[in-house]
Amino acid sequence: MSEALSGRLEGNRHRLLQRVYYEDTDFSGVVYHARYLHFMERGRTDYLRCLGVHQGQMAETGDREMLAFVVRHMEIDFRSSARMDDVLEIVTQTGAVGGARLVLEQEIRLNGKVLISAVVTVAIVNRDGRPRRLPANIAELLAG
Amino acid sequence: MSEALSGRLEGNRHRLLQRVYYEDTDFSGVVYHARYLHFMERGRTDYLRCLGVHQGQMAETGDREMLAFVVRHMEIDFRSSARMDDVLEIVTQTGAVGGARLVLEQEIRLNGKVLISAVVTVAIVNRDGRPRRLPANIAELLAG
Amino acid sequence: MSEALSGRLEGNRHRLLQRVYYEDTDFSGVVYHARYLHFMERGRTDYLRCLGVHQGQMAETGDREMLAFVVRHMEIDFRSSARMDDVLEIVTQTGAVGGARLVLEQEIRLNGKVLISAVVTVAIVNRDGRPRRLPANIAELLAG
Amino acid sequence: MSEALSGRLEGNRHRLLQRVYYEDTDFSGVVYHARYLHFMERGRTDYLRCLGVHQGQMAETGDREMLAFVVRHMEIDFRSSARMDDVLEIVTQTGAVGGARLVLEQEIRLNGKVLISAVVTVAIVNRDGRPRRLPANIAELLAG
Repeated sequence: MSEALSGRLEGNRHRLLQRVYYEDTDFSGVVYHARYLHFMERGRTDYLRCLGVHQGQMAETGDREMLAFVVRHMEIDFRSSARMDDVLEIVTQTGAVGGARLVLEQEIRLNGKVLISAVVTVAIVNRDGRPRRLPANIAELLAG
Repeated sequence: MSEALSGRLEGNRHRLLQRVYYEDTDFSGVVYHARYLHFMERGRTDYLRCLGVHQGQMAETGDREMLAFVVRHMEIDFRSSARMDDVLEIVTQTGAVGGARLVLEQEIRLNGKVLISAVVTVAIVNRDGRPRRLPANIAELLAG
Repeated sequence: MSEALSGRLEGNRHRLLQRVYYEDTDFSGVVYHARYLHFMERGRTDYLRCLGVHQGQMAETGDREMLAFVVRHMEIDFRSSARMDDVLEIVTQTGAVGGARLVLEQEIRLNGKVLISAVVTVAIVNRDGRPRRLPANIAELLAG
Repeated sequence: MSEALSGRLEGNRHRLLQRVYYEDTDFSGVVYHARYLHFMERGRTDYLRCLGVHQGQMAETGDREMLAFVVRHMEIDFRSSARMDDVLEIVTQTGAVGGARLVLEQEIRLNGKVLISAVVTVAIVNRDGRPRRLPANIAELLAG
């Protein structure tokens, strides 16, 4: 049940299954474009969860500041559309880790076909929003 | 995996587990009140899915009209709040079936505690939005 | 411009105009039922804004605790549906004020026709979620 | 009132004011990243509305097919965050028009400061999702 809820790691890749519900669609008949960002955010959250990267862990490292991840840049290809009742696979992996930045590569697939692909640049910041270096132990986990 | 995605029936009750993600919360720190209606709609959709009630099946009955379910009335108690990362259990069961109406009783629970309870009245309509009687085979399935 | 953004008070009633966009609809072709709660929450927020009830003001009164409004109960009639591009009028007024509770009556109208009506019970709580009496000056404003 | 609801054209630029409500925020205290795409979609919808480009008009041109706009690619910079109650200005203008594609440049500003900037590539498709050339009269309107 835990795997079904939080997805699973396969080597460097995290895979999460999510259903399309009414709330995700719009009157054009397919999924509203911004909803794919929700699915990808769920994938990133559960990727970190499966890696064991919790807020607590981030707070316990280095200068003991509370750190957070913030999306700074996204480049998204909307290749094809999902529909009501579809079961989507959200695939997340780390593309690059460096300094105060992390690049994640994500795809949303339906029956193996890529509907959406995205490159997401995430910054590590402290409570005041100032950039901070990613703690070494977390950088290692992400680099796989 | 199918059970995890669509929940399961236990006698008359359908149970679905759903995670709270960033998208569900607001700046007050807890889940935004309208998001509980999303969780409950997911529960109703998967309840019907587990019962085998599909649009297709509804279209194949009686006068062969395409029928749909539409929410007409909700009474909701917001007793307590969910937070980021919580795993919620959405419980759905039929309260009453009659004519062109269906009353569903729903709860959202966290660790067995009821956070939200709702009574949802659903109408059966045709494509033009006119009320139709619930087909007998579906009424039987819902009555359990 | 301020009136257009925040609506306006007419006697006891607050009126706010809001457009239906893609995000509000689902694949059934009409507005997703939970989105009406968003429109009503916008109405309540701007009703308080127009009355001059700000968090700051609530914090400055009585025992100087920070107070907040929390939805405890909703009873909602979904009479008819809105569609893409519709301009909805959200009407909000106070039904009753008493102790730690506030009852608001809300409607969503399209061209004068009531699509949705709701009775919303709101509790006043402090930072720890404990019930608090509504400060007298705010109770007077709400009672009109 | 119409201007406040649908924004206004200033030369090639469309400007729309939108308030941040509870629904737009998450528990981190600022606006949820995907919500900026909602604000930008509202801007694009009202930009087309102000230009007089309606579904009907698109259907009346050329081979009289019903045409629709679909987002194919987005590149988004999240520079800074918006908060509850902020009044955002969404600025939309056409960057390039050609064949079956349209590139729109969008910004979300707060008090003149750019919080979000995006380049949005939109395809013109028929009901079956096949690419179609943008009708000449609409291309002219967009090119300003």
